[in-house]
Amino acid sequence: MDLKFKVIKESSCGARLGEFETKWGHHKTPMFMPVGTQATVKTLSPEELKAAGADIILSNTYHLWLRPGEDVVENAGGLHNFMNYKTGPILTDCGGFQVFSLAKPKDISEEGVKFKSHLDGKNLLLTPEKSIEIQNKLGSDIIMSFDECPPYPVTHEYMKNSVERTVRWAKRSLAANKKRDTQAQFGIVQGGEFADLRKFSAIETAKLDFDGYSVGGVSVGEDSETKLKMIEYATAYLPKDKIRYLMGVGEPMDLIDGVIRGIDIFDCVLPTRLARHGNALTRDGRTNLKNARFIKDLDPIEKDCDCYTCKNFTKSYIRHLLVSEESFGQRLISIHNIRFLTKLMEDIREHIEKDDLLEFREEFKERYLKNREMKK
Amino acid sequence: MDLKFKVIKESSCGARLGEFETKWGHHKTPMFMPVGTQATVKTLSPEELKAAGADIILSNTYHLWLRPGEDVVENAGGLHNFMNYKTGPILTDCGGFQVFSLAKPKDISEEGVKFKSHLDGKNLLLTPEKSIEIQNKLGSDIIMSFDECPPYPVTHEYMKNSVERTVRWAKRSLAANKKRDTQAQFGIVQGGEFADLRKFSAIETAKLDFDGYSVGGVSVGEDSETKLKMIEYATAYLPKDKIRYLMGVGEPMDLIDGVIRGIDIFDCVLPTRLARHGNALTRDGRTNLKNARFIKDLDPIEKDCDCYTCKNFTKSYIRHLLVSEESFGQRLISIHNIRFLTKLMEDIREHIEKDDLLEFREEFKERYLKNREMKK
Repeated sequence: MDLKFKVIKESSCGARLGEFETKWGHHKTPMFMPVGTQATVKTLSPEELKAAGADIILSNTYHLWLRPGEDVVENAGGLHNFMNYKTGPILTDCGGFQVFSLAKPKDISEEGVKFKSHLDGKNLLLTPEKSIEIQNKLGSDIIMSFDECPPYPVTHEYMKNSVERTVRWAKRSLAANKKRDTQAQFGIVQGGEFADLRKFSAIETAKLDFDGYSVGGVSVGEDSETKLKMIEYATAYLPKDKIRYLMGVGEPMDLIDGVIRGIDIFDCVLPTRLARHGNALTRDGRTNLKNARFIKDLDPIEKDCDCYTCKNFTKSYIRHLLVSEESFGQRLISIHNIRFLTKLMEDIREHIEKDDLLEFREEFKERYLKNREMKK
Repeated sequence: MDLKFKVIKESSCGARLGEFETKWGHHKTPMFMPVGTQATVKTLSPEELKAAGADIILSNTYHLWLRPGEDVVENAGGLHNFMNYKTGPILTDCGGFQVFSLAKPKDISEEGVKFKSHLDGKNLLLTPEKSIEIQNKLGSDIIMSFDECPPYPVTHEYMKNSVERTVRWAKRSLAANKKRDTQAQFGIVQGGEFADLRKFSAIETAKLDFDGYSVGGVSVGEDSETKLKMIEYATAYLPKDKIRYLMGVGEPMDLIDGVIRGIDIFDCVLPTRLARHGNALTRDGRTNLKNARFIKDLDPIEKDCDCYTCKNFTKSYIRHLLVSEESFGQRLISIHNIRFLTKLMEDIREHIEKDDLLEFREEFKERYLKNREMKK
């Protein structure tokens, strides 16, 4: 499926303002995708996601394969029908990341990866063909080719073998997609922190006819400098007229830095995971709302935030919900955190338009990291 | 506060169609109150409660006293502001039930009850004056007098002493209410399964100037027959022009039977507690949606139900959420279960109007208990 992606404007610093099309409408980039791991963005309804500014969501092939099984989702008419998400596209990942991070791989071969399910220990085999078959049944709008996401760090030799195989897997993934007319497909660039391997991976993957290109393996990087290099080494060799998707990255500063390096789409569990632990994203950094200083605080999480949570509930109440282990607290913070990131993307798009994204970055950074600096 | 309660119609079987007023509007009885134990009806937003037909909610004095503390709620401007519930009245209980059921009473005296907090074991004293003081600070629309809710069964002698003391506590509770102009107050009839003590309790409590009368201690009864007697022994002696509230009862059959015995208001954690365990209320009885037979079931919980859940989600999806331990599943069932009970109350009101409630009871019962009979 042609996403009809176009770059509307490229700023002086290399950031791209763009848009693409799906049957759900026109979508502006740079954009952030909340993650619905198990066919639900934790605690939230589809209407709440829409109201929080989410224009697209991601769901995990690995998790849905294991539970409820892709046949159950197909039986419902695909993921949109299954979870009643009818307001925007869904992107599914390939399962590679979870297989390597969650399921403890037993054995990687040319064929695929043999591993044990993290749920019941059952022996399973995930191959490029199987990953695409599952994603075809899930019926997401954008699917990912199967890749290996090696841990960090590995040796150059290990990574070289891995990216070469991932390129071969990309070809097999592309050939396996029986629904290319309705499901766009992205390739994934790996290569860790090695400039030559990122370059190789980007160039070889770009030779294949994908609708977009993902940059993987960055979220496992340990420091910001390394992460940024991993992105730069990849984007330098990717076609300018296709979507670039940085996988698993959602920290506000990383989003801005990613955009400056030419990234168009991001996904991360960060907003919902932080919420689960009572942490709210604010322009003054992360705030743990369980803190006793909020017990009688009648302000919202952020005074000028337009989200449902900030318009209706105080920190005093949210703190009470968290301390009482009431999941409505997690829900309220999830709404705010997702809105925080979708609003950040709106601001980023505005500053690409104005061509002052670097200045915005400095302003944002100074305020966002201030509390952290003060604590040092 | 005068609730301006009036009985609009009394059916041949003794059921009452009524209405009362608060600053939130006119409220039709018989009605059911969902329970927001800790200032939140578990997993639900105020808007969802309204949409599910809830016209009033209950919150627990004991829980809010312990956490976050009545001063925190008062600081927010009362419970309506604290939890942003602005669409209907809130009734608070007196704390008696929780003190006796949850906190293990240490020592009951004329003064009140000494007990240990179930949260941190701290020694606490709850008296009629303290219960009313807390409820005054919570700012609910209807408050309850402090009572003892004895376990079932106890001896006649124990119960006699208990109800006599509860009458004395009712007088002290009434004298302690400093906000009678804005907070209506109900007395509570106890007496267990003893006809003479229920009669004594009802007559003596009715002598006091309450805005309504609760029937307590029924939910601890072990069988339906005993429960019904407990209600009859009380309602026979209660004034006809005041609201009658049956505490802690929410089983559909018990609601119908309660209405037939002249009850106007009910509360129960049943709809949200059942949801927590994956159980949905349907006209065909309780259904556990975790059951494997629902794995590919694309029907809603009930085909002709008008709730958000049934209009948007399948049993297949809800089962997946439950099995995956996603709280959105609990939320969806809670919405349905609350709507099931508010709809049942609507039906009951309609059948009082038509004066065929006994026929409705038989029809409802036959279908509702059918599955249970079949399993025997």
